[in-house]
Amino acid sequence: MSNKPQNLAQSAAPGVICVGLGPGDPELMSVKADRLVRGARHVAFFRKKGRPGKARQLVDGLLRSEASEYAMEYPVTTEIPVDSPEYVQLLSRFYDDWCLRLAELAKQEQVIVLCEGDPFLYGSFMHLYTRLRERGDVGLQVVPGIPGMVGCWHATGQPITWGDDVLGVMTGTLSEDELVRRMETADALVVMKVGRNLPRIRRALVRAGRLESAWLVQNGSTANEQVERLAEVGDEVCPYFAIVLVHGQGRRPEAAW
Amino acid sequence: MSNKPQNLAQSAAPGVICVGLGPGDPELMSVKADRLVRGARHVAFFRKKGRPGKARQLVDGLLRSEASEYAMEYPVTTEIPVDSPEYVQLLSRFYDDWCLRLAELAKQEQVIVLCEGDPFLYGSFMHLYTRLRERGDVGLQVVPGIPGMVGCWHATGQPITWGDDVLGVMTGTLSEDELVRRMETADALVVMKVGRNLPRIRRALVRAGRLESAWLVQNGSTANEQVERLAEVGDEVCPYFAIVLVHGQGRRPEAAW
Repeated sequence: MSNKPQNLAQSAAPGVICVGLGPGDPELMSVKADRLVRGARHVAFFRKKGRPGKARQLVDGLLRSEASEYAMEYPVTTEIPVDSPEYVQLLSRFYDDWCLRLAELAKQEQVIVLCEGDPFLYGSFMHLYTRLRERGDVGLQVVPGIPGMVGCWHATGQPITWGDDVLGVMTGTLSEDELVRRMETADALVVMKVGRNLPRIRRALVRAGRLESAWLVQNGSTANEQVERLAEVGDEVCPYFAIVLVHGQGRRPEAAW
Repeated sequence: MSNKPQNLAQSAAPGVICVGLGPGDPELMSVKADRLVRGARHVAFFRKKGRPGKARQLVDGLLRSEASEYAMEYPVTTEIPVDSPEYVQLLSRFYDDWCLRLAELAKQEQVIVLCEGDPFLYGSFMHLYTRLRERGDVGLQVVPGIPGMVGCWHATGQPITWGDDVLGVMTGTLSEDELVRRMETADALVVMKVGRNLPRIRRALVRAGRLESAWLVQNGSTANEQVERLAEVGDEVCPYFAIVLVHGQGRRPEAAW
């Protein structure tokens, strides 16, 4: 079950290495990620059609000029429901195609797949990971990164959990009732995939009695970092990658707040 | 609320910088952490009496030989209950004392505080952080790190969450009933602070119907990494820093498993 035995990252050995890039500040990339990105000859990354791609932007200025780039453009993102047969079929074919293409390339070359945050926490790469692992004919390695939510809770300047606090991490795509149910059994909250789900997330927070302590954080750890009390902002257009946070208030020896 | 305006980390300006060191592999430290640790003139870290200290061990070989070291030794760890007045008083005085000492030093010098994982996720530093912030007379900055749990889920070689999975992060110090209640409203689970709480965590997992899919991970990302199915190991002595994991099984387009 371990991905340890392979050690692709110590050399330019052929294979696929997915590199977690962290929350946005290039200095928060790991030493290992930084080394792999700077040395890469082949770089693949996901992006929405017509966009530069968050992961690709994060490594601006780090890539070698002669590196070959492979933009893996989602055939669809939030235009159709994620549980519709059409969505599932489109995405499934997309991952199948890129799995094949990366596997062919990775027989001879080392391919670095760029992923913002941590690849194993709600990352798109895992759909390629399972397919590549199933094939079993190419080296495969994943480098952890600082999750985006960690950059966001640091942006608020407050610890996310204290003592025995339970942290609940959920996606804004859940139904309002599900959100309420999950929020009620957690002390600290992280809601990812916000975007147009914000009105529903807000209603759920009100029902769970947590709106007053909720924060909306965008671009945590970057120059464009934005931290606001959710109760003080409206439901106008909000980026998909924004995060809603509620800090835990657990046990602490005579805390100053 | 932001800790951005200060920019202690760009120079050797006086102040306290707490550096998240990540899960254990020194290569998984951020570029920023690596730079600060290698350049440090004053280094403080928590440890249990008579132990080298996990954070200090992690930077072995990186520190300058002339760096001054400050071992902040807990007056007590798990010997008395965390909710007893004696524990609270001992810990509170301990944090007060070190806050004073670091604040005095940080008026003239830059002090790097080493913390394993991410300092704002169940880290001891936050007790110093609130106190130093309350004083308001020394520069203060925190550098995020890859949380220990991230290193542990990578050790299993499986993504922790898929699709709309809810991730519940809790501590093994909760009562059995509380553990069950929190486990039942999460899809993916992380239980931290395992140690002698393992038998209770195991009983809770059985009641929540999750024992068969639970993993026990020790020293994720290090050379001593150990990954076992919890159902296949006994309740014998288990380190406090071990982590119990259950992976989510959410939506994925035609996954290979």
